Amino acid sequence: MKETIYISGHRNPDTDSICSALAYANFKSKQDTLNQFVPIRLGNLNSETAFVLDYFKIDAPVLMESIGEGEKLIQVDHNEVPQAIQGVEKADLVEIVDHHRINGIFTAAPIYVRMEPVGCTATIISKLYKEHNFEIDSQTAGLLMSAIISDSLLFKSPTCTPLDEQTCRELAQVAKVEDLESFGLAMLKAGTSLTGKTIEEIFHTDFKDFSVGNDKFGVAQVNTMDIDGFMQDMKVDMQDYMNSLVAKEQYSFLLLALTDIIQEGSMLLSAGQETFVEKAFNIQMVDHACYVSGILSRKKQIIPVLTEVVAK
Amino acid sequence: MKETIYISGHRNPDTDSICSALAYANFKSKQDTLNQFVPIRLGNLNSETAFVLDYFKIDAPVLMESIGEGEKLIQVDHNEVPQAIQGVEKADLVEIVDHHRINGIFTAAPIYVRMEPVGCTATIISKLYKEHNFEIDSQTAGLLMSAIISDSLLFKSPTCTPLDEQTCRELAQVAKVEDLESFGLAMLKAGTSLTGKTIEEIFHTDFKDFSVGNDKFGVAQVNTMDIDGFMQDMKVDMQDYMNSLVAKEQYSFLLLALTDIIQEGSMLLSAGQETFVEKAFNIQMVDHACYVSGILSRKKQIIPVLTEVVAK
Repeated sequence: MKETIYISGHRNPDTDSICSALAYANFKSKQDTLNQFVPIRLGNLNSETAFVLDYFKIDAPVLMESIGEGEKLIQVDHNEVPQAIQGVEKADLVEIVDHHRINGIFTAAPIYVRMEPVGCTATIISKLYKEHNFEIDSQTAGLLMSAIISDSLLFKSPTCTPLDEQTCRELAQVAKVEDLESFGLAMLKAGTSLTGKTIEEIFHTDFKDFSVGNDKFGVAQVNTMDIDGFMQDMKVDMQDYMNSLVAKEQYSFLLLALTDIIQEGSMLLSAGQETFVEKAFNIQMVDHACYVSGILSRKKQIIPVLTEVVAK
Repeated sequence: MKETIYISGHRNPDTDSICSALAYANFKSKQDTLNQFVPIRLGNLNSETAFVLDYFKIDAPVLMESIGEGEKLIQVDHNEVPQAIQGVEKADLVEIVDHHRINGIFTAAPIYVRMEPVGCTATIISKLYKEHNFEIDSQTAGLLMSAIISDSLLFKSPTCTPLDEQTCRELAQVAKVEDLESFGLAMLKAGTSLTGKTIEEIFHTDFKDFSVGNDKFGVAQVNTMDIDGFMQDMKVDMQDYMNSLVAKEQYSFLLLALTDIIQEGSMLLSAGQETFVEKAFNIQMVDHACYVSGILSRKKQIIPVLTEVVAK
């Protein structure tokens, strides 16, 4: 009888963890026909990964909460125990394929480890297919491609290497995805959609208070690649909420920055004395909103100019 | 200017650590022409490794005692800090190529790690040449082949995998070593030669006392692949030493087993009442010596039969 070997990504799985577990199970099944490789996941799919699996018509890995003593396990996209499946210390860890820093691995015997300082585990797995001269089917190519898009933010992340981008573009051809950029943006947009969240949740995701002289102001920031969706469905309610907060807590003004790191800009929404905001960024707000290109960092690009204007 | 990246095997270097450091420097120089790769060693060459470097006319790696803060390092054939070069915690570890169990690795950033559960680091390095389609020159092939012979005890070790043996035989052809077995035996013999050691050092390498009833006896064991060299140069002096010890310490008898794990047998030398030894192994000693095929374990094959005979 075939022995079962589980393949797991990290807790709070992202697209690389899910897609790499699925793809590596495919790879291992070609490399080792004597055992059975079962991709698993340690948590719910996020909306980006759900988009990918839906697009390529692939079932999600089985959800597993813990692994039994002596059961065989392959870790992809992580190596640290706190990120691994519950029970990992007593499982039989047989392989690690990862692209993160190493944070205290211990094994009883020599195992197979493949780590490379690239932007995505899927890039390493794609390399393994080449090294073994295994053909990649179009579905698996789609998974690997999607993982690279996710980890590299469509090649914009500083962690993205030339090999990640080159691999991703090759995979897109095998996956028959003609317009990689369009697919990538749709996928990232699905992942950062604010749909389903409440106005308060969005505003307080990352909110900070500041005081300059007698003025108190607050700045919230949310990363999303779906500013349009927000403006259409939630802008009015958000404006009401921010106005009520200004009145209740006596803020001079409040600012919400909806930041799109792919478009490289932020939609600014204000409530209260919006002249501070208009002066700070040298903009004219329309209906209390204005998109400002190039603004990505609250710490470096928003707070310093606001503080300067308020202090005058 | 090219940056220097040191490549080091473990402390108390064996043939795999020295030869893999040299070979991996050759590999990295082909893979990365922008940096300079310097193989180093953390201790003296053993006589086996000296034989190999002499045979293939290759200089030993530079001896280094410690590495400076921020200096770049590649570890081959080890991963644990206690086995690594002094100062490793503050060095910039950029790669690990190894075949040992993982015992607590920590890195600040993602690095390249290649570990496989094979018998020798040189087997992994040989695989890397293939994956990159790099040609192996005959000297480097000789180094890699020798490392595999050493770690696998010419394929007799239980840690030797089919890939180790296959790789070694391929390398022998590239290295133009026509008779792999002869070369391997000569190399292992050079490594376990007892020449240069004193009679007392040899006898007390691993000596144990036993008491059965009123009889006290002692058994020493030494692993060597040069029994012939011992018998020619040292046997007479060893006999004198053992006789003096029998008289001085009132042993019923003493036994020295010179064990050759390649030939799979032991040369037994005795002093005192040698009928015990002759009865135990059903042999006839000639000039107080007899080679017994199949005897490798003192614990399992020597002590039980001696104890039984003495107890009668």
